[in-house]
Amino acid sequence: MSKFLSKKYINLAPYTPGEQPKNRKYVKLNTNESPFSPSKKALSLAKKALKTLNLYCDPEFTNLKKVASIEFNVGEENLIFSNGSDEVLNYAFMAYCDDKTPAVFADITYGFYKVFAEVNNVPYETVPLKEDFSLDIKSLCEKKGTLFIANPNAPTGIALTLDEIEKILKSRKSRMVIIDEAYIDFGGESAVSLIDKYDNLLVTQTFSKSRQMAGARLGIGFANSKVIDDLNRIRYSLNPYNVNATTQALGIGSLQDKKYFEKTKTEIIENREYLTNQLKSLGFTLTNSKANFVFAKTDKISGKDLYLSLKERGVLVRYFDKPRISDYNRITVGNKQEINKLLIEIKDILENIK
Amino acid sequence: MSKFLSKKYINLAPYTPGEQPKNRKYVKLNTNESPFSPSKKALSLAKKALKTLNLYCDPEFTNLKKVASIEFNVGEENLIFSNGSDEVLNYAFMAYCDDKTPAVFADITYGFYKVFAEVNNVPYETVPLKEDFSLDIKSLCEKKGTLFIANPNAPTGIALTLDEIEKILKSRKSRMVIIDEAYIDFGGESAVSLIDKYDNLLVTQTFSKSRQMAGARLGIGFANSKVIDDLNRIRYSLNPYNVNATTQALGIGSLQDKKYFEKTKTEIIENREYLTNQLKSLGFTLTNSKANFVFAKTDKISGKDLYLSLKERGVLVRYFDKPRISDYNRITVGNKQEINKLLIEIKDILENIK
Repeated sequence: MSKFLSKKYINLAPYTPGEQPKNRKYVKLNTNESPFSPSKKALSLAKKALKTLNLYCDPEFTNLKKVASIEFNVGEENLIFSNGSDEVLNYAFMAYCDDKTPAVFADITYGFYKVFAEVNNVPYETVPLKEDFSLDIKSLCEKKGTLFIANPNAPTGIALTLDEIEKILKSRKSRMVIIDEAYIDFGGESAVSLIDKYDNLLVTQTFSKSRQMAGARLGIGFANSKVIDDLNRIRYSLNPYNVNATTQALGIGSLQDKKYFEKTKTEIIENREYLTNQLKSLGFTLTNSKANFVFAKTDKISGKDLYLSLKERGVLVRYFDKPRISDYNRITVGNKQEINKLLIEIKDILENIK
Repeated sequence: MSKFLSKKYINLAPYTPGEQPKNRKYVKLNTNESPFSPSKKALSLAKKALKTLNLYCDPEFTNLKKVASIEFNVGEENLIFSNGSDEVLNYAFMAYCDDKTPAVFADITYGFYKVFAEVNNVPYETVPLKEDFSLDIKSLCEKKGTLFIANPNAPTGIALTLDEIEKILKSRKSRMVIIDEAYIDFGGESAVSLIDKYDNLLVTQTFSKSRQMAGARLGIGFANSKVIDDLNRIRYSLNPYNVNATTQALGIGSLQDKKYFEKTKTEIIENREYLTNQLKSLGFTLTNSKANFVFAKTDKISGKDLYLSLKERGVLVRYFDKPRISDYNRITVGNKQEINKLLIEIKDILENIK
């Protein structure tokens, strides 16, 4: 830290991304990436876009908006794009939280919400998940601030129904509700269909997980046009060219290649069921994940020890050294080969304990 | 605007990027883009990077930092990268300005500084340029806040010498000085060589202009490691994956392809001198631009009318409807063909006035 840093950031604790060690080749099941390459259609459009990178990218996302508007069945004026969904989430913390309007989110959820509140110097309150890690909707509805809900939640993978989301939206018509659907494509019910009905709803999604674009950075926000105007006001005040030209092209290609999207999504869901059943048969307890990861624990070994033993054996999973969830590991659903490697190592680790 | 937008942003006036009309093909000399394609080496590395976009990009810029460290002759710990240099400039407004430390910049300079101050809710003061549009160093040195200086300045193109920059740095050792070198490669003296000597110096550059990557978004910050730590603290609290994988690859290729960088840079400088001389012979007054644009006016036609007439004829230049500079147009230095088209149209416009 330099002596020049403003006092407001001296205690800021940044987000810690999943580790990306470079000393060794790992089976990477720790950051919820897709095990599949991006769609060929997307790659082909990206290659074309490379040639004109000397020109600024389109700050209005004209072509990307057209394609997304058709794909998601919303108006072009209901869309905003961002450099990963983190960016549009940050815009929402900026636009809809302040001294009088705290951010409200679950005690166990995406770790970045707390950081967004802190970096923007806005107050926040957390609402504990219930014992079974489901969202305490009653307590949440009693809170007065702007709600941030990951659906499915991370790192538990547990999803809300659309009825539950509507109940929340109705409970707080004078405050915004942000539904972060980073993992929605793997089995949850999207709230995008509700944006015309509720002017206090912002839905965010990402192309990082179900669309194989974690390294390209593309997020998307859905809301009524006034909310989109608010977010664009922030975007044009920070970085109007926030999504670069290759990523806009990749996004178009990915949305147009529905077949590949469906195929890869289905395979992840099938693999998740396979992994879940295998882990259960090894004595693990798992949440009912609707995401591209499972959240699992066993009495036989601590979350930390399993994480460390797997790492030693070349398999990375995510361990959270935090209250209530330190018994668990979050394991990304990879391809069959990766899952089988993981299972072999887990079996061996458990056998060596006995 | 929605009824939910926080009061702090109700009067926020976002940055206005140069227009990018889509109704017609223009000779685009309004946003200071390079007329050349990106380097072939850069494109080839980007194509390789496309294949693994399903994995997150490297938030630590490991390979890009290595290459840049050699190219710029600085330590890896002295570097940060961003999604365009706007992003690192915003980090600096966040980190080094607050209620007690206003941002200070010239009255005529990069229009985004004012917006960064406003979106971050920090006070700012402007120091008028002298009559000849040169920086009033004496007045600037008397100010107490964090300085933001574009060198060469925009939209005038006028550059400071390294001696002048040192004088400024020495005048305010307890405050940060940010030198924004977006246009430095076209003839200015870079302050990067001073980062070891002054702990209050942050230099920013962009790959948008001299490296043909406006559409790819890559900015770079140079400073002592403590300042870089401050900026990374902000970056990891907003968007750790801020520079995507293709752009990191493009950056590496661009830095490694020195020959192309030198060749294209030299051509722009030669074209600038050609354009300057031609405009002078048509009766224009120009600043002494060290950037990839010229800043020109004539008594024969107003800045606004010239801009509008050129637009009608398919040539876009930038006009600023602002005090002191509304007589001028900022014209990007394109390739010879673009310049000649511009000159033909200007001649014709001027002849039709007579």
